[in-house]
Amino acid sequence: MTTKILSIDHTKEPLLTSISAYKGDKARYEKEWVPKIKAYNKKLSDAIPKENLAPESLVPADLDNAAFNATTVPEKVLDDQSIKITNLTATEIATKVAKSELTSLEVITAFIKRATIAHQLTNCAMEILFDDGIKRAKYLDDYIEKNGKTIGPLHGVPLSLKEHYDFKDHVTHAGFVGSLDRVATEFSVTNQILYDQGAVFYIRTTEPQCLMHLDSINNITGRGRNAYNTSLSPGGSTSGEAALIALKGSPLGVGSDIGGSIRCPAAFNNIWGLKPSTKRLSLVGCYFASYNTFQESIGCVLGPMSNSVEDLELFMRSYLDTKPWVKDQYCVPIPWREVSTPKAQELTIGIVYDDGVVKPHPPVLRALKEVENKLKASGVNVVTWDSHRVYEACEVVNALYTADGNYAAIGKLNDSGEPLAPLSELYLQFGKGDKGLTVTENQFYNNTREVLRHEYSELFKKRGVDFIIAPTYVGTASKPSLIKYWGYTSLWNILDQTCVTFPSGVFGDKSIDKKDTSYKPRNEYEEFEYNLYDEDDSDGMPVGLTLVGKRYTEEESLKAAKVISDILKV
Amino acid sequence: MTTKILSIDHTKEPLLTSISAYKGDKARYEKEWVPKIKAYNKKLSDAIPKENLAPESLVPADLDNAAFNATTVPEKVLDDQSIKITNLTATEIATKVAKSELTSLEVITAFIKRATIAHQLTNCAMEILFDDGIKRAKYLDDYIEKNGKTIGPLHGVPLSLKEHYDFKDHVTHAGFVGSLDRVATEFSVTNQILYDQGAVFYIRTTEPQCLMHLDSINNITGRGRNAYNTSLSPGGSTSGEAALIALKGSPLGVGSDIGGSIRCPAAFNNIWGLKPSTKRLSLVGCYFASYNTFQESIGCVLGPMSNSVEDLELFMRSYLDTKPWVKDQYCVPIPWREVSTPKAQELTIGIVYDDGVVKPHPPVLRALKEVENKLKASGVNVVTWDSHRVYEACEVVNALYTADGNYAAIGKLNDSGEPLAPLSELYLQFGKGDKGLTVTENQFYNNTREVLRHEYSELFKKRGVDFIIAPTYVGTASKPSLIKYWGYTSLWNILDQTCVTFPSGVFGDKSIDKKDTSYKPRNEYEEFEYNLYDEDDSDGMPVGLTLVGKRYTEEESLKAAKVISDILKV
Repeated sequence: MTTKILSIDHTKEPLLTSISAYKGDKARYEKEWVPKIKAYNKKLSDAIPKENLAPESLVPADLDNAAFNATTVPEKVLDDQSIKITNLTATEIATKVAKSELTSLEVITAFIKRATIAHQLTNCAMEILFDDGIKRAKYLDDYIEKNGKTIGPLHGVPLSLKEHYDFKDHVTHAGFVGSLDRVATEFSVTNQILYDQGAVFYIRTTEPQCLMHLDSINNITGRGRNAYNTSLSPGGSTSGEAALIALKGSPLGVGSDIGGSIRCPAAFNNIWGLKPSTKRLSLVGCYFASYNTFQESIGCVLGPMSNSVEDLELFMRSYLDTKPWVKDQYCVPIPWREVSTPKAQELTIGIVYDDGVVKPHPPVLRALKEVENKLKASGVNVVTWDSHRVYEACEVVNALYTADGNYAAIGKLNDSGEPLAPLSELYLQFGKGDKGLTVTENQFYNNTREVLRHEYSELFKKRGVDFIIAPTYVGTASKPSLIKYWGYTSLWNILDQTCVTFPSGVFGDKSIDKKDTSYKPRNEYEEFEYNLYDEDDSDGMPVGLTLVGKRYTEEESLKAAKVISDILKV
Repeated sequence: MTTKILSIDHTKEPLLTSISAYKGDKARYEKEWVPKIKAYNKKLSDAIPKENLAPESLVPADLDNAAFNATTVPEKVLDDQSIKITNLTATEIATKVAKSELTSLEVITAFIKRATIAHQLTNCAMEILFDDGIKRAKYLDDYIEKNGKTIGPLHGVPLSLKEHYDFKDHVTHAGFVGSLDRVATEFSVTNQILYDQGAVFYIRTTEPQCLMHLDSINNITGRGRNAYNTSLSPGGSTSGEAALIALKGSPLGVGSDIGGSIRCPAAFNNIWGLKPSTKRLSLVGCYFASYNTFQESIGCVLGPMSNSVEDLELFMRSYLDTKPWVKDQYCVPIPWREVSTPKAQELTIGIVYDDGVVKPHPPVLRALKEVENKLKASGVNVVTWDSHRVYEACEVVNALYTADGNYAAIGKLNDSGEPLAPLSELYLQFGKGDKGLTVTENQFYNNTREVLRHEYSELFKKRGVDFIIAPTYVGTASKPSLIKYWGYTSLWNILDQTCVTFPSGVFGDKSIDKKDTSYKPRNEYEEFEYNLYDEDDSDGMPVGLTLVGKRYTEEESLKAAKVISDILKV
């Protein structure tokens, strides 16, 4: 491989000109599959403990269109004990259960109550497993009583799971209607590891069709809602996890990310999310379109989501201490390394105010500036990070997503003939769409990817930057089915750098975040995306930013994130 | 990705039915490129210090056809001091130079003498850099005198390099005639690391056309010869290194391996070679056909070759202690781990007597048995390893090599219109040949590769086996341009497992290794390859076997290899 710059001629590779041949099969879908969707939803609905629902008086009738802040509801409904427990972090829960200050049953009972309300408000659940959760918690309580010790560092911690990880004896469909009959025969390796470390599974959460939207719509459970404004998107593809955790219906969850799917929903819902570098966590038994093929040019990763940075570390340490590479050879044998927390004065952080493709919306720019000021005031050395070849990186990453000419995605859609969600239509047009790449083109883009990684690696060194803080998305949460531009997140997938998405503490404010109507877009991405800014929609919505570390620096990145967390008091 | 078994229907994917469209361009080649080849060879020839050549009386006139054991020559020619120095291992040299018991200049002077004879007998050199070596040695001697310490753990160690690693200000052509004008502007990352650790570069060695033969022929320097029988192949593609090190014209060299290219020549020339798992050593600045593209389905690796197992470890430790992942983000950040040497009684080793595709020739079977007996006698727990899906693995790995439809290889051949070597013709027909794969097929095979890796990983656990000992090739060194079957080596490339090739101490013996003429081949690979066995050619030829460890176990594998080395006294 070479480290020389290879340019792509964008005049010859225009954006989004392909149209997917997939049209669905309405008759077959309605006859054969809609009944299965109904049965699936009935099961979901039946599993809701109605006694835990928030009263109608607290919930607008038309949540989908009401600009309703769902985070205000749970504590109006729950008993004090449940509020107290659900406000604990996963780390605190693990400690208290280990010390027998709380039982696993008390913990899961409280989270079941709050998760019920979270689902009522945001439609975040794909499958409710509350009975299993209670059974498991009782087992764990028995265990601790009999053995005088925990079975692992996650003993008694309620842990929510995005749906598409194989769950023993349960349907696992990855949002594809045509997979609604697919019953997994065992846990995914990651689920098994977390289970063995003591986690309590009790809920599986939603994801969009194809798992490839920064949004939430699928044909099975419909659309999810944002925790801070139910008329807006929760982001995606780990849509349900983010809304659930934001409402504290779960202290810790597992998402997946190949283009922003952990980070975008984390940012939109004001929670924490870690996108590790590839191959630290196992993907075996994760179900998606390319389940029988393997697109490895841009690697998917799993990672934790939570309400605190400590919980991300708890998750990673608990996971990696089990040596996942022994269970799954795909994982690199890098144990969790204990590193020290740097002093603020030891950190140099580059801030991305503009990636050169799409200028962020006013609330995001203001959040970046406020964070910069607070970091500087605490002694962090802050510099501005000049963007580098982001447009090209976006084009390449999009072309690699659909390198197979949508063979896998359309294959799975065709299983049921289900209709396309608008953002699936967009996704299927990424890169060269149905045409796909030749192997030579794919290898050429692989090399471009390596060149970009090398250049960024050198830039970090040359600029003396330890970490970057960048927007997670151009703006705050959008209305559903709108987001086209993934560049602020997918850049770090093609580069495979560690990312920690965090709440900036800043919320949109229409009285100060005024739209710049005179701004002249530089390209067609920006033409569309910059113009999405809506002062009213952004008002009161959280801005989540992302700390970017070098490749394979999960340990160092979380320690730096802790420093930032302390400074920002988030 | 899935771990389910996916079968390939071989009746639909017949072997070697494609014919490459590449025909060369004789007129252009002869007019434009043959003069450059002549100039290149003249420079090579001019750089040979004639005073160091072995006298004609000791060298058969027709080395290419004489069954001549070249290893007998050097010590008949060299002075005692040079013999003494060149019989040292790299580890001993590094120690003695560090203690000032030898100077770097004394060392390189002795190796230059012996390398000259090695090249005379085996045609192993692609470029001779003896003047540079002497200059460098003087610099290192000055350094140690001035600073009272070495510049690194390889201080003063002569280190030979396969040609295709970029060498600052020198032509680097990878065996392609059409790249004879390509002057590298910097060292490859690996060359730079070794240089910075104190190595003395003085010779670059030969490789075959396309770098994809288990043999040595290219159109620039012709064919190389085996150190033990000059009429036979030295193996390949790291052909020159193996012959040079076997003749002790170098104590330590660097090879590359994507299908057997370190291990085959190591075995054929009775030396040691390590094929690490992918991404421990940097590939940046390694020149090959796909220099501007990146085939990552089957990863190429670099690795050391030497006359002792300790030297392989010296190389790896010296290299990894520099944190190559900081210089090249492609490398995984796994430092060299110091592990203890196991007791023989702690090891369980599985022996492969037959991979189910091609039965090994009699000398190899005898070597396996003798090694088994010696290991057992020393307390090692030895079991027979039943082969697992090797035929399918071979088909898949071959299809992945040529996934680009030979775009890269033919592109580089076309630069000069050079004629095809017979084994390039074979290589271009691997898998689907010029037709190549679609991206979907490529992704399907990627998944098959992951499934195979998972299955082998589970088999190691299930069978309780720590390591495997397997043939490196079906037989001992063959006549040139014959070897078609790579399965005994390429299996471990698709699986990405660590391999240490070692001298078994066993040599072919025509009085006992009788051909089994009644054997009925099971498939077309075996039909061809088993019938290559020639009692006369194998007589006196070394059998090199390969110790196979799990993925990313370079540290443990070298320690186990040390145990075997001690038991076998090799």
